[in-house]
Amino acid sequence: MNVLIVHAHPERTSLTHRLAEISAEVLKAQGHQVTESDLYAMGWKAVFDAQDFPERANHQRLSFIEESGHAFSNGCQTADVEAEQRKVLDADALILVFPLWWFGMPAIMKGWIDRVWAFGLAYGYKGAGNAYRYGEGGLAGKRALLAVSAGGPAEDYAPRGINGPLEQLLFPITHGTLFFPGMQVLPTFAVYGSGHLDAGRMAETADAWRSRVERLFEDAPIAFRPQNGGDYPDRHVLADHIQPTQSGLTVHIANGDPPCEAQVANFAPARCGRSEGPERRHS
Amino acid sequence: MNVLIVHAHPERTSLTHRLAEISAEVLKAQGHQVTESDLYAMGWKAVFDAQDFPERANHQRLSFIEESGHAFSNGCQTADVEAEQRKVLDADALILVFPLWWFGMPAIMKGWIDRVWAFGLAYGYKGAGNAYRYGEGGLAGKRALLAVSAGGPAEDYAPRGINGPLEQLLFPITHGTLFFPGMQVLPTFAVYGSGHLDAGRMAETADAWRSRVERLFEDAPIAFRPQNGGDYPDRHVLADHIQPTQSGLTVHIANGDPPCEAQVANFAPARCGRSEGPERRHS
Repeated sequence: MNVLIVHAHPERTSLTHRLAEISAEVLKAQGHQVTESDLYAMGWKAVFDAQDFPERANHQRLSFIEESGHAFSNGCQTADVEAEQRKVLDADALILVFPLWWFGMPAIMKGWIDRVWAFGLAYGYKGAGNAYRYGEGGLAGKRALLAVSAGGPAEDYAPRGINGPLEQLLFPITHGTLFFPGMQVLPTFAVYGSGHLDAGRMAETADAWRSRVERLFEDAPIAFRPQNGGDYPDRHVLADHIQPTQSGLTVHIANGDPPCEAQVANFAPARCGRSEGPERRHS
Repeated sequence: MNVLIVHAHPERTSLTHRLAEISAEVLKAQGHQVTESDLYAMGWKAVFDAQDFPERANHQRLSFIEESGHAFSNGCQTADVEAEQRKVLDADALILVFPLWWFGMPAIMKGWIDRVWAFGLAYGYKGAGNAYRYGEGGLAGKRALLAVSAGGPAEDYAPRGINGPLEQLLFPITHGTLFFPGMQVLPTFAVYGSGHLDAGRMAETADAWRSRVERLFEDAPIAFRPQNGGDYPDRHVLADHIQPTQSGLTVHIANGDPPCEAQVANFAPARCGRSEGPERRHS
């Protein structure tokens, strides 16, 4: 298989680089092909702007959707964006490794998404509006896995932790950015207290990450509900018969992770397809 | 009062610019002082990297927390970051206007946060670790308001909409980025279907935004629970007596918005301090 590893930290000795190195080692040892995008080393242009559209469809007014669709469908994107799209399209799985900055991606990685996730590829697939999204689309059939490092302790990201559960904080990325164009997204691998990992915890972290990477093509993805699988009859709102009293983010995950994780603890065997929710995988 | 408006779209005729212009007009008419940061026009450097630390504390290894704290406390930050921090510190309220790209900020605005939210100011306040956060900190006493434009329809962001409720998708920004350093955050102003606003809807949108801006210093903020207000006895996890069966993101909002919004509809008078949750404010 082909795996693309995209990572975002300028320090070669950072945990981000170590996790990226480990994943490459494990995957190559398994006989996979590995491609990397070290965004800081590449000097990746983070800002999505008019320079992304050397041949404008509309010279009077800049509409990102219009110009992105025009550039993608007419082969007039910039070379750096085309190269990254090629890497993604050639990959069977995408691994994103980054430090959690203000509960999201560093700007350089957000800018990789903003620029590479073009109209016609990651949204507006087949020029059919929202007909193909959330489980279908230009990146369908590929797997995705996030490896994030957080300075804070795991308890801050627990089901009742003050920051909110990590998997819900990352929902705009896992569900809204990766599952949206069709990728199957695995539960996030998280390292907490990343500012002060001693040798022992670094070794434990490395072992835990190796085992997650070894199972990249075997682990069960988060069971996000596909738009066209019957749960969203009008493509917009969840069908009345699906968890009728529930709403929020986790209601979009089938067979588990009801909105109230505390209930998972109480009723896990009855309520969930597996014995633990993604949040619990981190601790 | 002083208000800082930060916005992120390169097209002068964009909805983002229009909303920024309207807010400046309304605030000046009320007698307030207005400062703007038009990030694209400023050519804002989005990527947080070693160039942000002209005088390193550690030349061997780049740690962002260590260098950010050193640069902030020793007055050796870059001029652009210092200027933006000055604008924020001089402001009584911050308005962020941006198009929703992949359910988050455009990279250029995320990079404004990454670089301006320094250690010692927005986190690690007073060198006291996490002693002051979520309701207290370097930006306490200021108000914050997001104005976001989304290409998709409102129903996709409804309590059971396929994208997830907008206010929960924005929780990493409202709670994790703005409330964290002490700001009081107002419910988000959202414009849906922003790709095709006809004159009538644009006029309605402008009127609705004007009224929100007019009430910038009067509207009730989202009732995020302060870390040191008694709900988090250990500063990490919600006290057992607070909504004991609940978890997730909305449990961190007092007097309303339990994780299952559908229950708000059923039990609003009993469960909520007000009759609608922030999500409902958009529709």
